[in-house]
Amino acid sequence: MNLRLTEARAWQALTEHFPEMRDQHLRNLFAADPERVRCHTLEVGPLYADFSKQPITATTLDLFARLADEMELSSARKQLFNGANINVTENRAALHTALRAADTDASLAAETQSAIRHELARMTDLHRRLTIGQVTGFSGQAISHVIHIGIGGSDLGPRLLAEALGTQQTNLDIRFVANLDPADLERTLADCAPARTLFIISSKSFTTLETRSNFDAARRWLQAAGCHDADLQRHFIAATASSDTAIAAGIDANNIYRFWDWVGGRYSVWSAAGLGAFLAVGPASFEQFLAGARRMDQHFRDSDWRHNLPALLAFISVWQVNFFNYGSHAIVPYDQRLSRLPDYLCQLVMESNGKSLRQDGQPIDWQTAPVTWGGVGSNAQHSFFQALHQGTRVVPVDFMAPLAGDASDTRQRNLLLSCLAQSRALMCGQHHPGEPQRDCPGNRPSNTLLYPQLSAEVLGMLLALYEHKTFVQAQLWQINPFDQWGVELGKSMTRELAQQVETPASNTSLDASTRSLLERYRAATGAE
Amino acid sequence: MNLRLTEARAWQALTEHFPEMRDQHLRNLFAADPERVRCHTLEVGPLYADFSKQPITATTLDLFARLADEMELSSARKQLFNGANINVTENRAALHTALRAADTDASLAAETQSAIRHELARMTDLHRRLTIGQVTGFSGQAISHVIHIGIGGSDLGPRLLAEALGTQQTNLDIRFVANLDPADLERTLADCAPARTLFIISSKSFTTLETRSNFDAARRWLQAAGCHDADLQRHFIAATASSDTAIAAGIDANNIYRFWDWVGGRYSVWSAAGLGAFLAVGPASFEQFLAGARRMDQHFRDSDWRHNLPALLAFISVWQVNFFNYGSHAIVPYDQRLSRLPDYLCQLVMESNGKSLRQDGQPIDWQTAPVTWGGVGSNAQHSFFQALHQGTRVVPVDFMAPLAGDASDTRQRNLLLSCLAQSRALMCGQHHPGEPQRDCPGNRPSNTLLYPQLSAEVLGMLLALYEHKTFVQAQLWQINPFDQWGVELGKSMTRELAQQVETPASNTSLDASTRSLLERYRAATGAE
Repeated sequence: MNLRLTEARAWQALTEHFPEMRDQHLRNLFAADPERVRCHTLEVGPLYADFSKQPITATTLDLFARLADEMELSSARKQLFNGANINVTENRAALHTALRAADTDASLAAETQSAIRHELARMTDLHRRLTIGQVTGFSGQAISHVIHIGIGGSDLGPRLLAEALGTQQTNLDIRFVANLDPADLERTLADCAPARTLFIISSKSFTTLETRSNFDAARRWLQAAGCHDADLQRHFIAATASSDTAIAAGIDANNIYRFWDWVGGRYSVWSAAGLGAFLAVGPASFEQFLAGARRMDQHFRDSDWRHNLPALLAFISVWQVNFFNYGSHAIVPYDQRLSRLPDYLCQLVMESNGKSLRQDGQPIDWQTAPVTWGGVGSNAQHSFFQALHQGTRVVPVDFMAPLAGDASDTRQRNLLLSCLAQSRALMCGQHHPGEPQRDCPGNRPSNTLLYPQLSAEVLGMLLALYEHKTFVQAQLWQINPFDQWGVELGKSMTRELAQQVETPASNTSLDASTRSLLERYRAATGAE
Repeated sequence: MNLRLTEARAWQALTEHFPEMRDQHLRNLFAADPERVRCHTLEVGPLYADFSKQPITATTLDLFARLADEMELSSARKQLFNGANINVTENRAALHTALRAADTDASLAAETQSAIRHELARMTDLHRRLTIGQVTGFSGQAISHVIHIGIGGSDLGPRLLAEALGTQQTNLDIRFVANLDPADLERTLADCAPARTLFIISSKSFTTLETRSNFDAARRWLQAAGCHDADLQRHFIAATASSDTAIAAGIDANNIYRFWDWVGGRYSVWSAAGLGAFLAVGPASFEQFLAGARRMDQHFRDSDWRHNLPALLAFISVWQVNFFNYGSHAIVPYDQRLSRLPDYLCQLVMESNGKSLRQDGQPIDWQTAPVTWGGVGSNAQHSFFQALHQGTRVVPVDFMAPLAGDASDTRQRNLLLSCLAQSRALMCGQHHPGEPQRDCPGNRPSNTLLYPQLSAEVLGMLLALYEHKTFVQAQLWQINPFDQWGVELGKSMTRELAQQVETPASNTSLDASTRSLLERYRAATGAE
């Protein structure tokens, strides 16, 4: 489309509306409108969202709904679900919603659906064979340890899912390794028996430097333990969209679990890319996880913008980023099992929307993805919350917490009350006459998401909620959330430096700083 | 002092100097000055710092050195080391440097030094007794598992230290628990034998809600396993500055390891507050860790500002925050053992400098602590680095990496080269004619810190480096980095909400959002 975001009529109306919202304290919005909570909360199945502690009124959200229409959001949403090639720079669909679609979904090609179901059935069978000890290693002993090797999207999602839902679901000990640093794999394998250890190599392209390097190291580890070359294949499974590459790398064709080029890395936890997590939580939980995401998909697809939770959260975030000029966004789950969610969402948001070009390649002059970070509550209260309350920067927060849990345990109650108290303290603040060091200005916005407890369904809903929120933001900002060209330069420069290390004579094109750092490396290691 | 930061002559000179630096690409600074690397690098023992990829010249740093003089930084530094009551709102010293001072340090009171040495000797003895199996639980069996319970400063530092240096140093299995969420303790204890488990309760005040609640839960867990009340004391050790409170809570006086009110929580890893980590790394490593910090202390104390690494990093950060208006700062160690460093520095920086008042209680109108976040490399390249390269926001990065390691392992080499390639890519960028989606603008600043390998000494140096950097920033910003009054409001509001849950009739003063969230909680749990 030719219309630029900032030229949209609704954007201009928002610009006019902004000073009125900027210049009043959140407390006053509550004083002015007794209906405020009713108008600024939404329930989607087990998920309850309160966004009343935001500097918005019904007018703000109405204007954003108009903006969504002007920016043709409905059409983009339709393309997303229908598998159009909305990832324009890579000429691909972004069809992660298909991975959790209902069998009866008529908008998807039958062969896509049957391929998805086929792989899920194979994953389920692998889980069955592993749990009954039918998968054996080079000595004939049953596999007891599974090491999922992946990085980025092949790591953060599976790790989150396994940690949130995966303990004690299985007799298998399932671990995750990502880093190129040899210490990562080495520490993880320290107490594993090679003959009983299975590796999952999860990489969409099956060429990722880190994952391939750790794959090689795992082979060496097995060989050093007496595994003959002929038996190596028994210890490796691939999760990939590039079967040929995996086979060429020595993976048995029967040990390949597929996903597809239309599954983006940071949207791949729903596929075989998350195989390690699938094995940790088991097929039944994984089905519930998919069902939760499907529930959010349906809500997102079928609700008008004013009653559409992903859209509303996106509107509020754009309001914060582009009008209030807030540069970061903190994710604070009061739920130990979600302690990896801030890292997961950091990737989802910043890799998707950390862009400066329109979908048509034209530069933009508005801000995009905020720095997305955070930490688990209540721990975070004893760390960065000081700055949230009294720092010079406003950081909007998304709080989330389970409502129920063990009622006889006062920790569970105090956990929830601490969460509610923080959002209240951030909003209200407090003045202490004569003790300025105790003053908190308040007027700091937050969302609160509550759920009965962290089931697989709730987790699926939460992740799909943020996926769609990110998608809506991208449509308003007019960027492509599904590519990640920015990471290519670093990769090519790594190759360039590797060449320079091998043949230092051709050093001349390097900047003086990098050249000097490289010289220190050579001196320290004796590398030629 | 009455002079306000922005009124300082050097500040005004920096303001005049700024446009010249803002308006040129980092690449040009290298082109303009062949001596640039020599002038903008510094070596302190095994630590090598390159800050040449920053938008600075010698003039910038000269002006900041003048600013430091105008802001009386030398006098503040002297007070820090001498134990003056520089934490003015709490009328206390901030004497964490004493915890690692040389025996011969004449600036410290003899009794302070002897108290520190005494506790270290007791910690060493505890380590000895534990490792030879002389500490036994209620059944008479030797302790095999140690659970360190603490939160905030009593958790992040010890956890970092143990993870960085602590594997396989001991026959003890040492774990950390922080969260109020019962799932944290429960999961940690799942495979522990109560009769062989010892708890360290680390809390400066010994009244911290989370830590006391987990202490209670740990007692219940032992009792449920058959531990008689008379034997409970054998399973608990306190690390605290409030012995009386610990004794009143049922800790055996002989099992209390002390630190002092002049040790701030986020500066306490050097004391008994880090007892769990001390046991994990052992006395010899801990001594090296202290020696590393001492080395950085001496460097900070004895170097003029233009050759003082903590000061220079602080100057650069103030330049980024207050002139370039960058709102966040990313910490990216290419070292798996430092994967917890971003969380540690997040607390150190944001709890210390997330303030809006001068030391004398007057408001300030300049920005203070940036959002401090990050992630371990190379993982982060597959997550948020997209936004660092192509996002609309500039995020300065501190890279760090070991130079050596196993030279036969190509992963180690590629890890270091990836680190160097990223800082180069961020600085240089690249233009791809006809492929705008590949364009990276470059001109994004970073520091690089290199060290031979992550020894205990290097870790001590790194943490002390950031402590002093934070201190210098606070002096320039004229804030007190040693208090944290901002966290009090949330605590008192939690108590208020607990009362409201118990007696809902008095509900009226609550905002409508919090009231409604509380009602959902009551409905979900049947709480009265």
